[in-house]
Amino acid sequence: MSTETLKKDILRGGQFLVKETQCEDVFTLEDLNEEQRMMRESTKEFVEREIWAHWERFEKKDYAFTEECMRKAGELGFLSIAVPEAYGGMGMGFVSTMLVCDYISGATGSFSTAFGAHTGIGTLPITLYGTEEQKQKYVPKLATGEWFGAYCLTEPGAGSDANSGKTKAVLSADKKYYSITGQKMWISNAGFCNLFIVFARIEDDKNITGFIVENDPKNGISLGEEEKKLGIHSSSTRQVFFNETKVPVENMLSERGNGFKIAMNALNVGRIKLAAACLEAQRRVTTEAVKYANERIQFKTPIVNFGAIKAKIAQMSINVYAGESACYRAAKNIEDRIAIRVAEGNSHQEAELKGVEEYAIECSILKVAVSEDVQNTTDEGIQIFGGMGFSADTPMEKAWRDARIARIYEGTNEINRMLAVGMLVKKAMKGHVDLLGPATAVGEELMGIPSFETPDFSELFAEEKDLIARLKKVFLMVAGSAVQKFGPDLESHQQVLLAAADILIEIYMAESTLLRTEKNAKREGEAAQEIQIAMTRLYLYEAVDLVIKKGKEAIVSFAEGDEQRMMLMGLKRYTKYTNPPNVVALRNKIADKVAADNRYTFDG
Amino acid sequence: MSTETLKKDILRGGQFLVKETQCEDVFTLEDLNEEQRMMRESTKEFVEREIWAHWERFEKKDYAFTEECMRKAGELGFLSIAVPEAYGGMGMGFVSTMLVCDYISGATGSFSTAFGAHTGIGTLPITLYGTEEQKQKYVPKLATGEWFGAYCLTEPGAGSDANSGKTKAVLSADKKYYSITGQKMWISNAGFCNLFIVFARIEDDKNITGFIVENDPKNGISLGEEEKKLGIHSSSTRQVFFNETKVPVENMLSERGNGFKIAMNALNVGRIKLAAACLEAQRRVTTEAVKYANERIQFKTPIVNFGAIKAKIAQMSINVYAGESACYRAAKNIEDRIAIRVAEGNSHQEAELKGVEEYAIECSILKVAVSEDVQNTTDEGIQIFGGMGFSADTPMEKAWRDARIARIYEGTNEINRMLAVGMLVKKAMKGHVDLLGPATAVGEELMGIPSFETPDFSELFAEEKDLIARLKKVFLMVAGSAVQKFGPDLESHQQVLLAAADILIEIYMAESTLLRTEKNAKREGEAAQEIQIAMTRLYLYEAVDLVIKKGKEAIVSFAEGDEQRMMLMGLKRYTKYTNPPNVVALRNKIADKVAADNRYTFDG
Ligand SMILES: Cc1cc2nc3c(=O)[nH]c(=O)nc-3n(C[C@H](O)[C@H](O)[C@H](O)COP(=O)(O)OP(=O)(O)OC[C@H]3O[C@@H](n4cnc5c(N)ncnc54)[C@H](O)[C@@H]3O)c2cc1C
Ligand SMILES: Cc1cc2nc3c(=O)[nH]c(=O)nc-3n(C[C@H](O)[C@H](O)[C@H](O)COP(=O)(O)OP(=O)(O)OC[C@H]3O[C@@H](n4cnc5c(N)ncnc54)[C@H](O)[C@@H]3O)c2cc1C
Repeated sequence: MSTETLKKDILRGGQFLVKETQCEDVFTLEDLNEEQRMMRESTKEFVEREIWAHWERFEKKDYAFTEECMRKAGELGFLSIAVPEAYGGMGMGFVSTMLVCDYISGATGSFSTAFGAHTGIGTLPITLYGTEEQKQKYVPKLATGEWFGAYCLTEPGAGSDANSGKTKAVLSADKKYYSITGQKMWISNAGFCNLFIVFARIEDDKNITGFIVENDPKNGISLGEEEKKLGIHSSSTRQVFFNETKVPVENMLSERGNGFKIAMNALNVGRIKLAAACLEAQRRVTTEAVKYANERIQFKTPIVNFGAIKAKIAQMSINVYAGESACYRAAKNIEDRIAIRVAEGNSHQEAELKGVEEYAIECSILKVAVSEDVQNTTDEGIQIFGGMGFSADTPMEKAWRDARIARIYEGTNEINRMLAVGMLVKKAMKGHVDLLGPATAVGEELMGIPSFETPDFSELFAEEKDLIARLKKVFLMVAGSAVQKFGPDLESHQQVLLAAADILIEIYMAESTLLRTEKNAKREGEAAQEIQIAMTRLYLYEAVDLVIKKGKEAIVSFAEGDEQRMMLMGLKRYTKYTNPPNVVALRNKIADKVAADNRYTFDG
Repeated sequence: MSTETLKKDILRGGQFLVKETQCEDVFTLEDLNEEQRMMRESTKEFVEREIWAHWERFEKKDYAFTEECMRKAGELGFLSIAVPEAYGGMGMGFVSTMLVCDYISGATGSFSTAFGAHTGIGTLPITLYGTEEQKQKYVPKLATGEWFGAYCLTEPGAGSDANSGKTKAVLSADKKYYSITGQKMWISNAGFCNLFIVFARIEDDKNITGFIVENDPKNGISLGEEEKKLGIHSSSTRQVFFNETKVPVENMLSERGNGFKIAMNALNVGRIKLAAACLEAQRRVTTEAVKYANERIQFKTPIVNFGAIKAKIAQMSINVYAGESACYRAAKNIEDRIAIRVAEGNSHQEAELKGVEEYAIECSILKVAVSEDVQNTTDEGIQIFGGMGFSADTPMEKAWRDARIARIYEGTNEINRMLAVGMLVKKAMKGHVDLLGPATAVGEELMGIPSFETPDFSELFAEEKDLIARLKKVFLMVAGSAVQKFGPDLESHQQVLLAAADILIEIYMAESTLLRTEKNAKREGEAAQEIQIAMTRLYLYEAVDLVIKKGKEAIVSFAEGDEQRMMLMGLKRYTKYTNPPNVVALRNKIADKVAADNRYTFDG
């Protein structure tokens, strides 16, 4: 196929906002092929047998056990999914990578953090930026779990401001090695890793530089104590001190001063994978919760029959479903974009790098949305268990604690929210996504007289699609005016940015959910997708609510007088339902099905 | 003063919804008298010295240390505030009781639970329902901390459905004692208490009966292991097993079959005190967070300068301020109602009972609102600390874990939400609160043509007061229609009830906040209350948003066609701002002040 056709078919990163996507063009969990399904099954089996069966050990700060499980995962090939075959990996596509990340993460955040840190930020900088020699030397070991990797970016004084680290790399007189000195903090897998990806500054460079550093205590590397943490109790997290650690010059990653870019690109992949890694935890918690609710009797009836509980179970289910929809949609986009690049003659490495970079906006969106969903789901999980939810003997409280980290690492959710909008605006400036045209059109529409025709909403999702198209206009209206008003100073108007980010996130999540369901309903008929249709409607209803709230908040804060009134009117027009759904009925329908199945069953 | 005047001056429970309260008629933290201020100071001193200085010990499951602190609290008189002087207590008013509950609870949930369980549900059933002999015998010991109390209501099969317990009390042949057998669960203070309030069933009574049971292992009483819990790590929580435990007949509380009532009334007081007990934790977390945000530098600036952080600090501050406003307003109502009853000739015991019962709706409202605020506040506290928030070496994560219990015990928040509306509807049925009249008026207004006059909103809070009056109409519209539609079946429409409850809660919280600020602004001038005015406006803005959301959710779920349209129009009309506040500017103003003070300073 010609690269031109390929290019036309898939949206570029951020374009979802201004282009309409056909449901046929999104990938869904229901589209998994046989190989992917088998991969998923074996991942689930592994988790049940090796991880879930021992969840209590993970709560006891049994770091050695995490390492043991990682080693087993390596033996079974789970660490090598994403690694190119040339370096001993399976070289599977991005969807498969996400699948494993997703289903391997449901039992405990301890293992999933170890897994994510190793296969993601611990390995990727080498596969994405390494020289042939570096890849030959290190990647096969990392792919099999013979070696484990860790990623040393954060320092006591450099967290969100990752490029501000003080760790130094000094070239030796003979130019053969760099001597690295500095203090890294919060390093996952530090306790058992063989290799560190270390970011350090050479002289007074503006940007940091990446290095591959083998772990060797005799080479000036020492570790702090294990951090005492709220959750992920068996994930090793330590400070790492480098004291004149000698690193051969050939272990520099990419070029001098390229470290910040490496760090950010590794984090991009890390973010979407982290989102996936929050899905199975939600499925498990939802399933455990509904099981409990079916069994627990109060007032002579299983509590699952109470509307209060149904609302929770419906919400929990919808959150997973929406998260799945958006994660796998984006994953396939990335996979396709890589394929296009390869077809265009890029090396696989280059292609992967660019493919992921392309969807950095979606990666940030997913990281925020799904990490917050898993928090809410586990929170409701506790509540459904009542007093038992507060007990460490039931699996709810540790899921809640483990979930808390996902909103902090791989870039805090504040940072990722601002990145999502910031990157979009930059793409627009660069002409990669045309926001100006659509934003101008919205501006004109706002001045004009609204149509009073009653649209024909008889087809499935006709009104919902229309609404999503209008939500996009809300974003364009809000973000467009903010850009106009604040210009380059926009970044300092964080609360407006954050509100815009919330709108953007809801659009992507709701649209992905709708497209997935529409695709499946076209294939299988609406009856077969009755519950998914309900979930889609309910997700969108809540999304519209949030867009109203956030849109209003932004508008009343940066616009005044007539402009404010016009925008508030626009907001109303763009968020108006002709036929609002019966929210309670939708919730009950969803919850009743989940209760009847006694588990979450919508993951294709 | 005549009891008639007294009666007229203060609102009855639930009447806030249909009557306008003058700001002069609410009590605020700024109204504390000298004695109360001194009490507060000594409470704070005690906490700093004995509790906060050792917060790490509380995380180490040091149950003995909690007991030691309780004993010290007893020696210093903190356990006897609410206890009548006749029984060795200080006999202070309800406001003072709340004050101590509030300020003693900020350091750790472990101590605050022990304190609450002992002074509240562990002692109150005796002071409220005990015979003179029972009071003489037990209360002085409890007031000094010579003895500690615990409250045994919950059983493995009876949690929310508290009246369904299986514990039996069998009268002996000689009618001298009851023999109690059963299993109680989740009993706070079980590990070190000397006395249990036990609820058990006599024969096949419909309702349970209360007993005072002295702790004596030789009398068939044994304890389970300490529960492993998510939070409040040094609060003793155990199962308590009674095996033919002999209890003299004179230890029955009140009458046979009166236990459920006792349990509920003890919980009423427990709920409002629990709300108070969540306030100082919020103040402390807010203060710790702003201190950190002032110190932590990223991107070359203290993070407190970022809009994202300002929004959090503003929200945290507003939540405490609103919680204080509502808690102390209700506390004084209760204190006054007790005074009226005493003036009318009731015994102090009777008066207190009725006084608290009167405001059961407000107690449920406060329990829900403040327990959720403390969760949100601690959650943002973690987020402001970034990675450090996840560390057990900083005080955020334990505050978050400790906060989680408040939404579960003393009646889950679901139960309390439904109670709040349910009790209100019952009061209306009994004619204690006239809802029908106002609801009918709203119905008529909805049919009529809205006025297009532009109201004069120039006075302080003129628009805000108007809005609150309209929010009340939203509640009447939603709840009124629901009652009409579902009649006695309303209880099974929980999601509508829950939405109504949220509206009710926001009304009470927002109104209380406004009245407090208005009162203080009248006394001190608006300039002196600039920040509080901002907090009030912002709280109300958010409240209106939630009312819109919840109102809409209810309306689209139980009304259809024209009725739905009319109600949605009504909702719009009743929630409309003529001059919406600049949300971002308000937040920044509040956050800047808190940042400049480097702590929360609005507690009068
Ligand atoms: C358990 C755990 C494991 C980790 N694993 C690793 C690892 O393996 N490797 C690694 O390198 N790092 C790791 N980290 C570090 C993690 O990535 C950082 O904690 C995270 O990036 C936040 O940085 P910080 O903790 O310094 O918070 P800060 O950057 O100090 O942030 C504090 C608060 O300020 C906000 N903030 C900061 N800057 C801005 C801004 N410009 N605008 C608005 N708000 C802002 C943040 O959102 C946050 O709310 C880990 C952390 C933890 C807790
Ligand atoms: C740390 C701790 C300390 C405690 N201390 C004490 C104590 O000192 N003394 C004591 O007697 N008890 C104590 N309790 C028990 C506590 O009061 C109960 O846990 C609480 O009332 C909830 O009951 P449950 O745990 O059985 O949950 P359940 O009643 O089983 O509730 C489970 C879920 O169902 C919901 N639900 C239940 N009924 C309904 C309904 N009708 N409609 C809608 N939803 C419903 C609940 O809201 C909850 O979400 C303590 C509990 C804990 C965890």
